[in-house]
Amino acid sequence: MIKVGIYGGSGYTGQELLRLLLGHPGATVVATTSRRFAGQPVAEVYPHLAGLANLSFTDISPDEMAGQADLIFLALPHGVSMEMAPAFVRTGGKVIDLSADFRIHDVEVYGAWYGPHRAAELLPEAVYGLPEMHRERIRQARFVANPGCYPTSIILGLAPALKSQRIDPASVIADSKSGVSGSGREPQIPSLFCEVDGGFKAYKVGGHRHTPEIEQELGLLAGRGMKISFTPHLLPVKRGILSTLYATLTREAGAEELTAFYREFYRDEPFVRICPAGRFPNLSSVVGSNFCDIGVTVDKRTGRLIVVSAIDNLIKGASGQAIQNMNLMCGLDERTGLPGVPLFP
Amino acid sequence: MIKVGIYGGSGYTGQELLRLLLGHPGATVVATTSRRFAGQPVAEVYPHLAGLANLSFTDISPDEMAGQADLIFLALPHGVSMEMAPAFVRTGGKVIDLSADFRIHDVEVYGAWYGPHRAAELLPEAVYGLPEMHRERIRQARFVANPGCYPTSIILGLAPALKSQRIDPASVIADSKSGVSGSGREPQIPSLFCEVDGGFKAYKVGGHRHTPEIEQELGLLAGRGMKISFTPHLLPVKRGILSTLYATLTREAGAEELTAFYREFYRDEPFVRICPAGRFPNLSSVVGSNFCDIGVTVDKRTGRLIVVSAIDNLIKGASGQAIQNMNLMCGLDERTGLPGVPLFP
Amino acid sequence: MIKVGIYGGSGYTGQELLRLLLGHPGATVVATTSRRFAGQPVAEVYPHLAGLANLSFTDISPDEMAGQADLIFLALPHGVSMEMAPAFVRTGGKVIDLSADFRIHDVEVYGAWYGPHRAAELLPEAVYGLPEMHRERIRQARFVANPGCYPTSIILGLAPALKSQRIDPASVIADSKSGVSGSGREPQIPSLFCEVDGGFKAYKVGGHRHTPEIEQELGLLAGRGMKISFTPHLLPVKRGILSTLYATLTREAGAEELTAFYREFYRDEPFVRICPAGRFPNLSSVVGSNFCDIGVTVDKRTGRLIVVSAIDNLIKGASGQAIQNMNLMCGLDERTGLPGVPLFP
Amino acid sequence: MIKVGIYGGSGYTGQELLRLLLGHPGATVVATTSRRFAGQPVAEVYPHLAGLANLSFTDISPDEMAGQADLIFLALPHGVSMEMAPAFVRTGGKVIDLSADFRIHDVEVYGAWYGPHRAAELLPEAVYGLPEMHRERIRQARFVANPGCYPTSIILGLAPALKSQRIDPASVIADSKSGVSGSGREPQIPSLFCEVDGGFKAYKVGGHRHTPEIEQELGLLAGRGMKISFTPHLLPVKRGILSTLYATLTREAGAEELTAFYREFYRDEPFVRICPAGRFPNLSSVVGSNFCDIGVTVDKRTGRLIVVSAIDNLIKGASGQAIQNMNLMCGLDERTGLPGVPLFP
Repeated sequence: MIKVGIYGGSGYTGQELLRLLLGHPGATVVATTSRRFAGQPVAEVYPHLAGLANLSFTDISPDEMAGQADLIFLALPHGVSMEMAPAFVRTGGKVIDLSADFRIHDVEVYGAWYGPHRAAELLPEAVYGLPEMHRERIRQARFVANPGCYPTSIILGLAPALKSQRIDPASVIADSKSGVSGSGREPQIPSLFCEVDGGFKAYKVGGHRHTPEIEQELGLLAGRGMKISFTPHLLPVKRGILSTLYATLTREAGAEELTAFYREFYRDEPFVRICPAGRFPNLSSVVGSNFCDIGVTVDKRTGRLIVVSAIDNLIKGASGQAIQNMNLMCGLDERTGLPGVPLFP
Repeated sequence: MIKVGIYGGSGYTGQELLRLLLGHPGATVVATTSRRFAGQPVAEVYPHLAGLANLSFTDISPDEMAGQADLIFLALPHGVSMEMAPAFVRTGGKVIDLSADFRIHDVEVYGAWYGPHRAAELLPEAVYGLPEMHRERIRQARFVANPGCYPTSIILGLAPALKSQRIDPASVIADSKSGVSGSGREPQIPSLFCEVDGGFKAYKVGGHRHTPEIEQELGLLAGRGMKISFTPHLLPVKRGILSTLYATLTREAGAEELTAFYREFYRDEPFVRICPAGRFPNLSSVVGSNFCDIGVTVDKRTGRLIVVSAIDNLIKGASGQAIQNMNLMCGLDERTGLPGVPLFP
Repeated sequence: MIKVGIYGGSGYTGQELLRLLLGHPGATVVATTSRRFAGQPVAEVYPHLAGLANLSFTDISPDEMAGQADLIFLALPHGVSMEMAPAFVRTGGKVIDLSADFRIHDVEVYGAWYGPHRAAELLPEAVYGLPEMHRERIRQARFVANPGCYPTSIILGLAPALKSQRIDPASVIADSKSGVSGSGREPQIPSLFCEVDGGFKAYKVGGHRHTPEIEQELGLLAGRGMKISFTPHLLPVKRGILSTLYATLTREAGAEELTAFYREFYRDEPFVRICPAGRFPNLSSVVGSNFCDIGVTVDKRTGRLIVVSAIDNLIKGASGQAIQNMNLMCGLDERTGLPGVPLFP
Repeated sequence: MIKVGIYGGSGYTGQELLRLLLGHPGATVVATTSRRFAGQPVAEVYPHLAGLANLSFTDISPDEMAGQADLIFLALPHGVSMEMAPAFVRTGGKVIDLSADFRIHDVEVYGAWYGPHRAAELLPEAVYGLPEMHRERIRQARFVANPGCYPTSIILGLAPALKSQRIDPASVIADSKSGVSGSGREPQIPSLFCEVDGGFKAYKVGGHRHTPEIEQELGLLAGRGMKISFTPHLLPVKRGILSTLYATLTREAGAEELTAFYREFYRDEPFVRICPAGRFPNLSSVVGSNFCDIGVTVDKRTGRLIVVSAIDNLIKGASGQAIQNMNLMCGLDERTGLPGVPLFP
């Protein structure tokens, strides 16, 4: 039984880790932290967990946590993880960091988008935790940087086409739409029901911090540097990210052929589903599950590949993928404890 | 391994049975029927089940089904079940009927609300499938009439107070609010997104067909005939029923005392959770689970008990409760295969 | 042209006053205040008003406002209005207060629910601004206490039955459901999209501060003291309040007869619409308008009257009614500038 | 007073025409047709119009309508308009057709996307009713083809950049998202609340019938043939279309400069609002109004222009624009009767 600690347990991502781990047969949560709610029972802050999670939030130090837990999830804001992670890694415990702090290998790129890095010495050790790309390295890792939600949906959507050089790397546009849980549980006007319901908007157009992370991983697939246009939007739904991806084909191909190629590419992946040619995923088909659904077609009139990918941002886009990584790091079946069936309707 | 057949598999209730049974370790769905979609793969009609349910909808006769299945769920409209049920019961298979056809013991009451009954000879055999009230009889039953969604929320909310004669049976008012999935998947104008979103309404005020079912079961608890006022409303949410229940106390009592009494009453129930005194359930704390959450208080100024109960209408209000009944009828742990953790946010 | 000032202009109620007054032919907003956003253009805080409201929020003192405005709306929190109102009233300007501070005539009742009153000397002058009840007094008033949103829906729903003594005053139960804009624009966890969407809950059961206000006005209609049970709920919609009202009939009556009586009672009211017998209002039929829609029926089996009433909480429940009062106080046609056509879908 | 007839009055677009015309000081609706609801009062089919629209749906022939109405709106499905329009045009009445039947000048292009045209002789007379592009011709027109909802948002978003040759016409990608009212009021499974709420999907990827209409008008602006990639998506909102538009800049430019240019381009347009540089529109800022809000920026890293445009699909995207055209055709101020202030929240 893996003893798990969660840092930043009162946010939606931290809650989701706890929620999912309640059904994990090989792991148990020994502590979950929250400065704001320290001392309060989890079930008071999250009443849906009444009777299920008999924990209270704590505010224990890294050293105390190290004495109790084998593996730690960091569901903390960017910049805070880099203060916490080094201590745990030194104790020999396993760490899965859900922030952006250790996802970007190039410390200058990190600096340009996020500001100075204060734990750069750890960067070489951090493995980018996208199992479909880096499974073997994750199995060996002690320290995993869990991918961002947008990057997960975009990288999985483009990997087959990019790796097989079927698309022009300079032509990639990612138009992504996310549910509101991606903004976290901090009270702020733009996340209020009355501001979101019935609305829809783009934000951080051309300047979202997930851009360098996406470009890094797409660059690895393309075998060259990449610059993409990435536009995030805020959907009036709680969960889910759907990315519509555009790129110019380098040679003619049909929707059937590319769909078959995608299906083959992801043949052994337990959490990637390819839609039949001409069909595209709906967010509501993945919500509540760790699946990434992908639909592929060709716009014959313009010679462009169009891919649509969909994930649950809190599961495959964050906490589910983190547990998938935990399973790999701990030698368990990758699917253990992960929800197999989406919730619909 | 219980071999299960589903009649009426393409509606939301039928889908939910299949969805839940995919995760049930002791049962397997051998066939699911749909006239409309016969021959089509389930995953085409319900893409969230792609890769999970490798079945196609069929339109097989009761006799064919009897050869394949040990137990059958009837997720059919009222009036159709009473045509189908007798054939199965005669073959010796177990039947769980999710329609209203066999819930009401008194054939005249049934007639007054639903029209003539055409299989009244089976009524004595049908057990009302609310485990919290009739668990032992369900264990012995071959034929269970699964409760309605509204009745489940109302009966569980009032049972402790009514059975202990703490409230005046003539004073009961049930103001209930349901999500749209309760209206099924039939295309009709009042269920369209544009008609429902941003709206809210009462319907069938004073005349909803669940009324006699509720009164029958409350009457058993009260030990006398009951007449209640029951007003259903349509909420702009997909899943969930929340009932606000009013009744005049027969003797003074406080919220703490009554909460403690409710907690004691349901002490051994795996799927009933009582909120702390002064707290009330939120639909979003039960969605995706088989829980019924109940909050209890006293309006001291008017001497009324006020109870709020919440369920997921497709799970505890229909398919989850049906599986709970199946577990009981087949000697399994009652909780087997039922979702333990709600989906929030 | 009436020169209007708004105090508390950056909340939803203040915004709605400004939004509606932009289309008012007889009034112009000369200043709108906000401490938080002082100095910022209104269109930055509320982009839907870009190009329409060429004002910036100010933080001017009551005295400065008195020099600019003939009439002032106070869209301030309870307790703040009572600090501001006396100064304006003394200057001879007209005041419409949207807070609860001057709605309750009995200073002890106020104290029991809200705490000590610090401007009780003004209470005798304040007219309760429900035109359907107190139109003539409003016409003469300099100082109007604008009704609460819940009270408006409940009082209008019960007035005909109560005034004509058709119902037992001791039997009244009001089960009300409100959209989220009623909670204001303050950032707080319970108002976040992810907390509200897909959910539904009761709150302040048996203890909401609108209770004494409702009882005061119902008591005037009944000609005796009243105690009611009032349960507010939070709906996952932006706008609207729907109240379902229960009371025991004092003599037998049918739905048709009572509907006709309600229609007659409100015959000359421009903003009350009575549904045909057997029909009930939907929130979405009043959103965007100043209408109160009411449906009336009888639960023959229990002898209860059931009334359903619906309003847009920001319009008839707050800012629209305030403008209706302004029109009356200033000798304009009551309907001037008020939206005549709801927005549907 | 213009006497107006509406064909297809029971759909959402027909309803919206009626709803808006109720507030139009220079026009009155003399008849509105519906086969399905012929004989029923409008207020029964649309209860929000109770007391406002004292009409019943009729099923009168074109000749009868011609005797009553000066101007006719056709809110009919594609293919039906081309049967009805010729008769009216021959009578000398004015016609505004909201279907696609007369939007495309090239009958072969029409044929390729929609099938054979059966009234091609009328095509030369039809003016494409986008006032911002063809105002003078609309003023002279007897027969206007009202633009599609997607085309309106895309053409207005790209016109300044394309006309000034700031972007490469071959590089245009339009990623559009629409509310559900665009699918009409026909009952169908994909429009049900339970299918839409919490979901999001792309549809008709690379094959939506609005494509040739968009390309025709963009081609006029660019002065050459155009092929674009256009991907529509279904948003879980009732009203609104937001389009995110991508194109490669032909020469370097900054967001400030382009924003200023857009503002200048649309300086005299009463219904186009340009956001400050770095700001982007939200659907909820235009819902309920005839505005098109546009935000403009440059993705410096990739050299692309990114434009976001937002409209209310039922108003500027259909019925509001149709009334704007009616005003122009009838010599009224273009803004007459059009809602000036959006509904928020």
